[in-house]
Amino acid sequence: MQPTAVNAILAEVRALQAQGHQLVSLMRGEPDFPTPPHIVEAAARSAAVGRTGYPDNRGEKILREAVAQKLQRDNGLRYNPETEILVTTGATFGIYAALMALINEGDEVLLPDPVYDAYQSPIRLAGGRVRPVPSSIINGRFVLTAEALESSWSPAVKMLVLNTPWNPVGTVATEAELLAIADFCERRNVLLLTDEIYEAITYAGHRHLSPLAVNEALRDRAVLVNSLSKTYSMTGWRIGYCAGPADVIQAMYLILAQSSRGPATFIQDAAALALTGPQVCVSEMVAEYSRRRALVLDRLPEAMAPDGGFFSMLDLRHWSLPSNEVRRKLMQEHGVVTVHGSAYGPGGEGTLRVSFASGGKNLETGLERLSAGLRQIREAHA
Amino acid sequence: MQPTAVNAILAEVRALQAQGHQLVSLMRGEPDFPTPPHIVEAAARSAAVGRTGYPDNRGEKILREAVAQKLQRDNGLRYNPETEILVTTGATFGIYAALMALINEGDEVLLPDPVYDAYQSPIRLAGGRVRPVPSSIINGRFVLTAEALESSWSPAVKMLVLNTPWNPVGTVATEAELLAIADFCERRNVLLLTDEIYEAITYAGHRHLSPLAVNEALRDRAVLVNSLSKTYSMTGWRIGYCAGPADVIQAMYLILAQSSRGPATFIQDAAALALTGPQVCVSEMVAEYSRRRALVLDRLPEAMAPDGGFFSMLDLRHWSLPSNEVRRKLMQEHGVVTVHGSAYGPGGEGTLRVSFASGGKNLETGLERLSAGLRQIREAHA
Repeated sequence: MQPTAVNAILAEVRALQAQGHQLVSLMRGEPDFPTPPHIVEAAARSAAVGRTGYPDNRGEKILREAVAQKLQRDNGLRYNPETEILVTTGATFGIYAALMALINEGDEVLLPDPVYDAYQSPIRLAGGRVRPVPSSIINGRFVLTAEALESSWSPAVKMLVLNTPWNPVGTVATEAELLAIADFCERRNVLLLTDEIYEAITYAGHRHLSPLAVNEALRDRAVLVNSLSKTYSMTGWRIGYCAGPADVIQAMYLILAQSSRGPATFIQDAAALALTGPQVCVSEMVAEYSRRRALVLDRLPEAMAPDGGFFSMLDLRHWSLPSNEVRRKLMQEHGVVTVHGSAYGPGGEGTLRVSFASGGKNLETGLERLSAGLRQIREAHA
Repeated sequence: MQPTAVNAILAEVRALQAQGHQLVSLMRGEPDFPTPPHIVEAAARSAAVGRTGYPDNRGEKILREAVAQKLQRDNGLRYNPETEILVTTGATFGIYAALMALINEGDEVLLPDPVYDAYQSPIRLAGGRVRPVPSSIINGRFVLTAEALESSWSPAVKMLVLNTPWNPVGTVATEAELLAIADFCERRNVLLLTDEIYEAITYAGHRHLSPLAVNEALRDRAVLVNSLSKTYSMTGWRIGYCAGPADVIQAMYLILAQSSRGPATFIQDAAALALTGPQVCVSEMVAEYSRRRALVLDRLPEAMAPDGGFFSMLDLRHWSLPSNEVRRKLMQEHGVVTVHGSAYGPGGEGTLRVSFASGGKNLETGLERLSAGLRQIREAHA
């Protein structure tokens, strides 16, 4: 197991800071919004009235019911809160538990390339082997084609991990794309782990669709993973949820019950309120991300326009430098921190991930440095 | 993997309740005290000032330093908060991560018999095999003798799991007992996982000692697991910590970083305050447990006097009925819920665990029912 790209880069950042460098970070996937006050207050109220005893390890009933309600309202999905929903210690735990429950020694797992780099370690921990599915860039968008899925398949493939909206590349899968993926999973008898944590953050007419909503038959072979982290700016609360067939949820529950035992009880109360209460805080955040996205696209001609999420990929594929070298130069010589696309797989080579999870002065200064730095590096190596 | 005894009995309880039975529970290991208000308020304050972003996955610096301070103050142990301490999602996660980090396929793990029944599943999940160490009852106290350890040893043994104060039997290991255990671990090259979560709750001149404090040489082969759950009545907060050699802590950190990612950030702030702030809340709770313990011993002549923790074992070894049958009769015919000793291993056969984690009217009524029930069952089967 290895630290994630962000953690590895953070170590470089700290070393430079110790030498007196002033760095601006456009690296992290952490919203700079505080958690909306009504959610913070709900947690405080719940703890104050004594909701501090052991939680139900499947998730408090009130939260499982709120999740069921949310899945129906936002995704058109019906799950039984008694048996088909598990509250998890963040989406990361949901992914971990699903892999531990479903993957056996030697099973292969299809993983888009490039993709968020925290899937590989838990796949290996569960005994699985990663099989990358190369993506293509078509009309300025990273996509997984049916042909790429088909040619990556092997008889040892047990599962496909899908992330839509897709970190880091910003693609929101369309209905047609999801239908092709669902068809592939059925035809090849492949399980689906669908990580939808960026669902609320979409732009310019794109709208999140769960693969489970486009093809009912997927239901028996899919685990949906979601979290409150990005939607409600609750990354530090460590709270997420999964939905899936009752037997899979039961197996995941047994793993959770032996380890984290789920989120704090009063946090679950606050999460239930977040999911069922007013959603205006979400649309306000998305409006602000949308302004930041426009700023990035305006300042950086290399920036690809994301359908969703809060990252933009800079397309430097025609440059002769490896993306990690460009990243290092930008950090060391121009004081701005990004993530090299190759950290997310060979398919990310030639790109750089720029985060607009933080905005304001940080984003302004970061984009200035990035723009100037890219120009200088390009000129020096042209 | 199986549900714990308590969870299995809870299912029986719910079925009886659905039929209209009014049951009193002396079963659960959950304090009935709310979390002390200064800790609840600290969490609310911290969340309100925006401590809602990702925590450091090793544990927030302020909390790792508070843990180091606590280990030195209460246990005479020095650990480096930078490299030798990991904040975990409850002690359960600490145990899980230590086992996943240290146990390989086929390794054997020595486990006292009887013992808390949530060690076995994570040992198996890590690929290990349990080797029970039979305990003896000497002078009304369950003990692990040096002879029992020695005769349970095999060349495949990698680790001993120790729990002091010992759930369910209430033994607080003495210095002499710990020296013998430390000697065994060194001589046989066995790692030690020491679970000390009941440390604050001791009675009648008994005082918790960490095995690490009686023999410095253990330090390189031991992981200490602790939690705030019992000491500060924070079971539902899911927060604990581990101390151990830097390389083991690093391996445990990598597991945590792929799964739970540690407790919520603002909960970590509150935990730091709990560990370093006023401890009068702890001594008040212990005084109340001490009164409850006296009540149990007064009402039930079968009750063994625990050195620590909040359980008493009823010694029914001279009865001809299996402990699970006595438990069932007490629940079905007398409306009081306990846990059969055999749920904790064959060494618990002939005993019943009675919890005084809850007090007041619940304990009073429970003890009345228990006393009457035991008399009737004994007479019917004498």
